[in-house]
Amino acid sequence: MPMPAEVRLGEGKLLIDASFSIRMNGYSDQKLQAAASRLTTRISRQTGIPITGGDRPVLTIECRAAAPETPRLGEDESYQLDITPKTAHLSAHAVTGALRGMETFSQLIVPGADSFFVPALHIEDRPRFAWRGLMLDVARHWMPTPVILRNLDAMAAVKLNVLHWHLSDDQGFRVESQRFPKLQELGSDGNYYTQAEIRRVVAYAGERGIRVVPEFDIPGHATSWLAAYPELGSAPGPFRIERKWGIFEPTLDPTREDVYAFLGAFFGEVAGLFPDEYVHIGGDEVLDNEWRSNAAIQQFCRRNGLRSSVELHAYFNRKLQKLLEKHGKKMMGWDEVLSPALEPGVVIQSWRGQQSLADAARKGYRGVLSFGYYLNYLKPAAFHYQVDPLGDAAKELDGAQAALITGGEACMWAEYITEETIDSRLWPRAAAIAERLWSPATVTDADSMYNRLGIVSRWLEYTGVRHRSDYQPLLDRLAGTRATPELLALADAVEALGLNERQVARHYSSFVPLNRLVDAARPESERIREIGNLVNRLLADPSQHRPEAEEIRLLFSQWSLNNELLQPLLESNFLLKELEPLSANLSRTGNIGLQALQYLASGVPAPPDWVAKEKQELSEMEESKAEVVLAAVRPVRALVEGISKPSAGIAGGRGFADK
Amino acid sequence: MPMPAEVRLGEGKLLIDASFSIRMNGYSDQKLQAAASRLTTRISRQTGIPITGGDRPVLTIECRAAAPETPRLGEDESYQLDITPKTAHLSAHAVTGALRGMETFSQLIVPGADSFFVPALHIEDRPRFAWRGLMLDVARHWMPTPVILRNLDAMAAVKLNVLHWHLSDDQGFRVESQRFPKLQELGSDGNYYTQAEIRRVVAYAGERGIRVVPEFDIPGHATSWLAAYPELGSAPGPFRIERKWGIFEPTLDPTREDVYAFLGAFFGEVAGLFPDEYVHIGGDEVLDNEWRSNAAIQQFCRRNGLRSSVELHAYFNRKLQKLLEKHGKKMMGWDEVLSPALEPGVVIQSWRGQQSLADAARKGYRGVLSFGYYLNYLKPAAFHYQVDPLGDAAKELDGAQAALITGGEACMWAEYITEETIDSRLWPRAAAIAERLWSPATVTDADSMYNRLGIVSRWLEYTGVRHRSDYQPLLDRLAGTRATPELLALADAVEALGLNERQVARHYSSFVPLNRLVDAARPESERIREIGNLVNRLLADPSQHRPEAEEIRLLFSQWSLNNELLQPLLESNFLLKELEPLSANLSRTGNIGLQALQYLASGVPAPPDWVAKEKQELSEMEESKAEVVLAAVRPVRALVEGISKPSAGIAGGRGFADK
Repeated sequence: MPMPAEVRLGEGKLLIDASFSIRMNGYSDQKLQAAASRLTTRISRQTGIPITGGDRPVLTIECRAAAPETPRLGEDESYQLDITPKTAHLSAHAVTGALRGMETFSQLIVPGADSFFVPALHIEDRPRFAWRGLMLDVARHWMPTPVILRNLDAMAAVKLNVLHWHLSDDQGFRVESQRFPKLQELGSDGNYYTQAEIRRVVAYAGERGIRVVPEFDIPGHATSWLAAYPELGSAPGPFRIERKWGIFEPTLDPTREDVYAFLGAFFGEVAGLFPDEYVHIGGDEVLDNEWRSNAAIQQFCRRNGLRSSVELHAYFNRKLQKLLEKHGKKMMGWDEVLSPALEPGVVIQSWRGQQSLADAARKGYRGVLSFGYYLNYLKPAAFHYQVDPLGDAAKELDGAQAALITGGEACMWAEYITEETIDSRLWPRAAAIAERLWSPATVTDADSMYNRLGIVSRWLEYTGVRHRSDYQPLLDRLAGTRATPELLALADAVEALGLNERQVARHYSSFVPLNRLVDAARPESERIREIGNLVNRLLADPSQHRPEAEEIRLLFSQWSLNNELLQPLLESNFLLKELEPLSANLSRTGNIGLQALQYLASGVPAPPDWVAKEKQELSEMEESKAEVVLAAVRPVRALVEGISKPSAGIAGGRGFADK
Repeated sequence: MPMPAEVRLGEGKLLIDASFSIRMNGYSDQKLQAAASRLTTRISRQTGIPITGGDRPVLTIECRAAAPETPRLGEDESYQLDITPKTAHLSAHAVTGALRGMETFSQLIVPGADSFFVPALHIEDRPRFAWRGLMLDVARHWMPTPVILRNLDAMAAVKLNVLHWHLSDDQGFRVESQRFPKLQELGSDGNYYTQAEIRRVVAYAGERGIRVVPEFDIPGHATSWLAAYPELGSAPGPFRIERKWGIFEPTLDPTREDVYAFLGAFFGEVAGLFPDEYVHIGGDEVLDNEWRSNAAIQQFCRRNGLRSSVELHAYFNRKLQKLLEKHGKKMMGWDEVLSPALEPGVVIQSWRGQQSLADAARKGYRGVLSFGYYLNYLKPAAFHYQVDPLGDAAKELDGAQAALITGGEACMWAEYITEETIDSRLWPRAAAIAERLWSPATVTDADSMYNRLGIVSRWLEYTGVRHRSDYQPLLDRLAGTRATPELLALADAVEALGLNERQVARHYSSFVPLNRLVDAARPESERIREIGNLVNRLLADPSQHRPEAEEIRLLFSQWSLNNELLQPLLESNFLLKELEPLSANLSRTGNIGLQALQYLASGVPAPPDWVAKEKQELSEMEESKAEVVLAAVRPVRALVEGISKPSAGIAGGRGFADK
């Protein structure tokens, strides 16, 4: 995952053991060597086998050219991988393709009946879109450098190639500026990246074939700038770093030349730190209250024929574009920056819908889709998976226009995540978006995606992200000093809600701890999905799936008992008290499930009254509580619906109880 | 944990929230400030609450003096901690005591009904022994610097104060020598600490009040020296780094002055790297084959009146002691170095028994106990807990002699651990030894220890060690691409065997991967201990513990079903195939347990024949398989034995089934 453009399965398998070694055949350089060495380390971690290397190379890598010095939009990322029972051969025109192919190779390693192996196959692979990004907001909650580094490894693993780094917002300015040090001194609470750290991240990303596009969000979302330099503002100030979430008024003054002088000097410094040709200037959600109540600004507008705040914003963007051009940079912005006056070459990032991307393309602008890819909504992977940058409004574009749709970006806004929880909010779901952006448009089967996602989720932990291994420790913390099998059972049965639901659930701010079940729980419960699959198998032919039936029955029995066992902990712990109704509902769900199994075992369809009543009850229990949803309801509902139909395995009047 | 010398519980509790802050009152320095800052970070991690600090200090720290520049044997580590519902006051003569007290404070934080809190109490605390060590072998399997650093944090958490760093052995020489670079170049496979890393570790330890005692094991266990400098050997060589485990012949030549010149220069370099006053020279398990077959050595012995290899070894140690003295260092060695000719001031580390420690004390030598503290045997915490440095042979020492018993050291030899598994082999069991060495001799109740150990085990993860969070990922790796609830159930039900059993189980060497269930499984199963407790509660009064009975029944049912569900995975995976008999036995154990529960529910004692037969079967199933033991047998045996007695709750003829 992402599924390669073309895969042809072969016969047999290639053994992977301590004698694994890599040989370069053709072009080689430090970048390729380092990647090969990382691959060897990764394979050691994946297998637990210390690789001591053998005489005969297991993997030969054949490259013809270097990657560009820093990764570049549209560079050649294609590769071919040929695996036979004797050897593996990876060939690529350029080093970047070889990097992509090495990730594919690593992902193919599994334990078999006799050894670890990779299956024999032939792969021809290349990306569908050139821009496959992940936007990380480090302003709302601070993310230290190691968080960024490990997520770059995970991005590389699923062939994402752009880190869009949202480095400033109302709640924090996260970069050390040597020209304007008050930005970090007064705008960051001390939480910012030094220039050395920035260089390290950019180099680390570059080694992995990942571009880094910095975003400095202006003229709105700019409170942290103004906390440091209030003289740039449209209102007199003073300003303080914002602690709440939302859209706020502090806005740069787009009418004054000294503001542009400041921005020119600032972006000059930025241009030296970030080698990528693009700089993102945000431009979203600009409130014009300060502009409208500032007489000088209004006068400026009148004098210059700017008839609205929208036009004033467009003026600002044009100036900014010139100013970035001077430093050799192209401008990128959220879809609000789209206006007729922009020069070509601007990239529009669409977050409000697919229409704006299509509009931009018609006007000749490159576009990157983020609408539908907001991971912080904590929607299911399947939801994001069906969003296609060339779908929806973009379907009607002609070929030349469609070619301007350059790709997409998963977005992770940080109001409701911390460095402890970001990994589990990104992974594995971001891999589904990565597949959408890399793989052929025809790869759309959600069941297949979920099957592979479960595998990739485990594999991703070898890259260093901790979305799986941090789960139990977070539950341990919630439980305090007690053992937690029952809390784990509850956590496995729920799914966390995202930004839309949380922002109305209570008054959040940067001071509110994110240390509750909703923060530990996963956006999608893998366990519940597995149980759903079990239920489906059972319903398809009850008499043939006795162990599955027994497994389900045990699980429902556990749910049924769980509330009684968990009660003492819930009562005595302020972090868990809110879970009491949820826990009670899990047990009720278990009871309904047990009853449904009894009907199924008896071979007689369940009475319609009972079915109607229980479905009603299940629906009620599916309403969110404590900012999580009881996902356990889903497989039980499927079971209840299944036994209400006089079909499938129970049609014959025989249940599975007659063992 | 360790239990303080004196604790008096008070009334009420002190709230811990985002307003937590620390004030220094009295002496303060960079070391204390850094520790306070680490405490704040730790509390953030423990609670998930970003600490923004309030106006009123919650914890006041009052120190009177600095710690010694580098930690020193016998320095003042005492502290007092006073917690009231309003404030906490930590006082200590010296900074080191304050460090110890801060760990106690951190450990007291738990979630309560309304908030996180620490209970009101008064603690007067000081260590029973001055030398509380942990020996880490980094020669047999390489342990990178981050492994050492995180374990230093965990050591500090349980008040261990000596890292005994076993830096050379037959299988590797792990320190960069600038004088003799071939040591690392030819003796380490590239896996060694640079001098910068050594300095970092020593400084990191020092910040936490932990001494670092380096060990260079000579004249035996010296193959890696000789791979680099064969001319130091007692046989002509050539030598290669040893790949097997055991005791090997290559030995330094103790008769040649050029060897001492080399060692003098080498230990001069070591003395500059390690500020502690002690250097450990190993001295254990010296095979004399090479000495006996070397004519020049034999001639030297005759000329110098050395009548045996033991006397030659003693000659070597005396020379070494002088040579260390020149560099201002005191010598430490394993108990084989004990001989009449040593000067006072040597520290004897006893590994072969407590007798040698008593003997050494009678001769006026300081002693440190390690016999009984070998964590790599993977024995239960309770086993180590009952070993007392002043117990056994030391009981008969007089006061002055007993005062020479300076403490103890847990030992972790690395034949059967890797950087992936070391944490789970150290923690939480090392905490039980830490308590033995710190707490009063009267603190000996194993049940109390286990209750607290479960809590401390969770708390230790906040220090950075990964003994709990790495468990599931290791099981995931074993299972490959599949979900693993059944593998988890099996892993939870077994306990891993240690060195004694593994070295006879198969031919191990440094090339054999440690990636099987035995490596993932825990030395002691917390889950089985909990189930044992449940069974005991149930047996004490069956009619009063219906949820417990139901919980046990569900668990046994799971075990019963587990083998059938796990079978497809076991069959298809070479790493898991060996578990087939074990998995079958878990299911049989579950079945026996279910039957026992039925007897218990019926209120009629189980027939003696049945009891005898099942006990026999359980015993057979307790024999180790695949280098693990089926711990699940224990609670089931307790249940079978419990229901065979016409006593306890079932005496009245009423079971618990009549709900």
